[in-house]
Amino acid sequence: MAPLRLALVPGEPAGVGPELCVRLAQQPRDYTLTVFADARSLQAAAEALQLPLRLRDGDHATTTPGELALVEIRNPHLPAFGTPDPANAGAVIGALHEAAAGCLRGDFDGLVTGPVHKAAINAGGIAYTGTTELLAQQAGCEVVMMLANDVLRVALATTHLPLRAVADAIGAESLTRVLRTTHAALRGDFGIENPVIAVLGLNPHAGEAGHLGMEEIEVIEPVLATLRGEGMQLAGPLPADTAFLPAKLRGFDAVLAMYHDQGLPVLKFSGFERAVNLTLGLPYPRVAVDHGTALDLAGRGIADPSSLFAAADTCARIARLRRTMRA
Amino acid sequence: MAPLRLALVPGEPAGVGPELCVRLAQQPRDYTLTVFADARSLQAAAEALQLPLRLRDGDHATTTPGELALVEIRNPHLPAFGTPDPANAGAVIGALHEAAAGCLRGDFDGLVTGPVHKAAINAGGIAYTGTTELLAQQAGCEVVMMLANDVLRVALATTHLPLRAVADAIGAESLTRVLRTTHAALRGDFGIENPVIAVLGLNPHAGEAGHLGMEEIEVIEPVLATLRGEGMQLAGPLPADTAFLPAKLRGFDAVLAMYHDQGLPVLKFSGFERAVNLTLGLPYPRVAVDHGTALDLAGRGIADPSSLFAAADTCARIARLRRTMRA
Repeated sequence: MAPLRLALVPGEPAGVGPELCVRLAQQPRDYTLTVFADARSLQAAAEALQLPLRLRDGDHATTTPGELALVEIRNPHLPAFGTPDPANAGAVIGALHEAAAGCLRGDFDGLVTGPVHKAAINAGGIAYTGTTELLAQQAGCEVVMMLANDVLRVALATTHLPLRAVADAIGAESLTRVLRTTHAALRGDFGIENPVIAVLGLNPHAGEAGHLGMEEIEVIEPVLATLRGEGMQLAGPLPADTAFLPAKLRGFDAVLAMYHDQGLPVLKFSGFERAVNLTLGLPYPRVAVDHGTALDLAGRGIADPSSLFAAADTCARIARLRRTMRA
Repeated sequence: MAPLRLALVPGEPAGVGPELCVRLAQQPRDYTLTVFADARSLQAAAEALQLPLRLRDGDHATTTPGELALVEIRNPHLPAFGTPDPANAGAVIGALHEAAAGCLRGDFDGLVTGPVHKAAINAGGIAYTGTTELLAQQAGCEVVMMLANDVLRVALATTHLPLRAVADAIGAESLTRVLRTTHAALRGDFGIENPVIAVLGLNPHAGEAGHLGMEEIEVIEPVLATLRGEGMQLAGPLPADTAFLPAKLRGFDAVLAMYHDQGLPVLKFSGFERAVNLTLGLPYPRVAVDHGTALDLAGRGIADPSSLFAAADTCARIARLRRTMRA
């Protein structure tokens, strides 16, 4: 069988993304890696880290350690490590678009991405809230963001919203969609036959029977009842503070948090280095690092590559499972 | 020097509170314990656990293992373990009131409390949102709830509010008061000369420079600037998802979360068993267990007493420090 083909996008060229890709290239692997980037940026990172890097033409995808296939997206300016240049915003976003387009065409089996510098993109005149949102729009589908490490998986019902907008953003329709997407991904991408999802309440103590908010009673519980009727195993709505107790977590395949800061502090506390960011619901698997551009570390060879390694491993694992299920 | 005198309130008599108090009584200790409860409830727990218990008159406070001094507060009904009786609501709340009154009079050096069953109290016709609020009202002061274990301390800027009410509840005045109270407690009750408090943002990514909410810029940052001007060491406003990374936590003496589910999931995940609930800002130290009534475990001798033991240890430590500083 032909090896899996993964598309790789380093993200912000002034950050740690390029050097993490160079490190990933050194790893033994059974999938090919095609990187969408500026060759000079990757070579500068390889030189800074004194690691070998051979860039091959994009058509010659390779599994050889030290090699990457390259689809070149030139940066107008080659930035110094640590100093993002808004002039490169178009190239950074263009690399993501082209790699994703390749995935949508079926040229690749999955997409692995490094960190993007949100402010530099916006300063470059491109409206950008996040790569997850960008890829969803390009693919024309609705997605769910999931963060995962070796300890737990946390999906989010809402992502990057002001806290005061969260309660109104949790509706029966969107919550139903998020749960269906998460459930399908746990089955299809994680191979869990009959997954159990723990659904957190919106309010403290999951609303304490209506004393601390009505959304559990009016929105969440009816959605869970409907989906349980379709056979989904859903626990909750659960109080967020005790849902993550290690003894309870063992009974859940994923936790659905209602908003960003309800679910991610414990996820990152429990194992930041190996955490990855998955986009569920796209036609292809997409897995990203769970950290930022770390501008202060860029080019120094000290950035921890664990999250990118985990992202590539996770993406390959999901792509393999999807291929197996299609076969 | 006379031993420290702690007041002890088991809480809901049908829950695990009485048996945890019986277990605490068995421990060697250098402080006296005076329990405010129904003697029959404590004796029933001692019998169920087959542990010795000698109840002495409240005036004869004792440090002897197996003994407690008793101020009797009779329950109208002696409930079966596992089945709270709303008829006892007045006695449960009465015990808290009397013990706290003793602390306010200076008869005791601190208050240790077990879990109360909120629904049973309200079903008994007593409006009750939490013991923290009850004690604050009785003492006529404003307080801060802090949860702490061996790993971290989390104070809350707001406590039991519906999520949609949180943003409007964070004002400059209340936030200033909460930070002053927390800072004073870290100095006076934890003996940290110049504490560092990490202050979380309200919004995801701490508002991302206003892109995800304005409260950081309009409310939190000005408060921090003012208090830094008075010499406080305050980090933030920090994104909640990365503030708890273990490497960062080592630089903080406490984390101030803006709301319940932003701070408590990680606190409980990081070490539930030894976690305690402190009320900062009262004239006396008050430390509670960090768990509920565990009705399903009551009377079976299997409830983990670690949190009550930690609460008593913590209360004694704080009381000792206050005594030393007064001397």
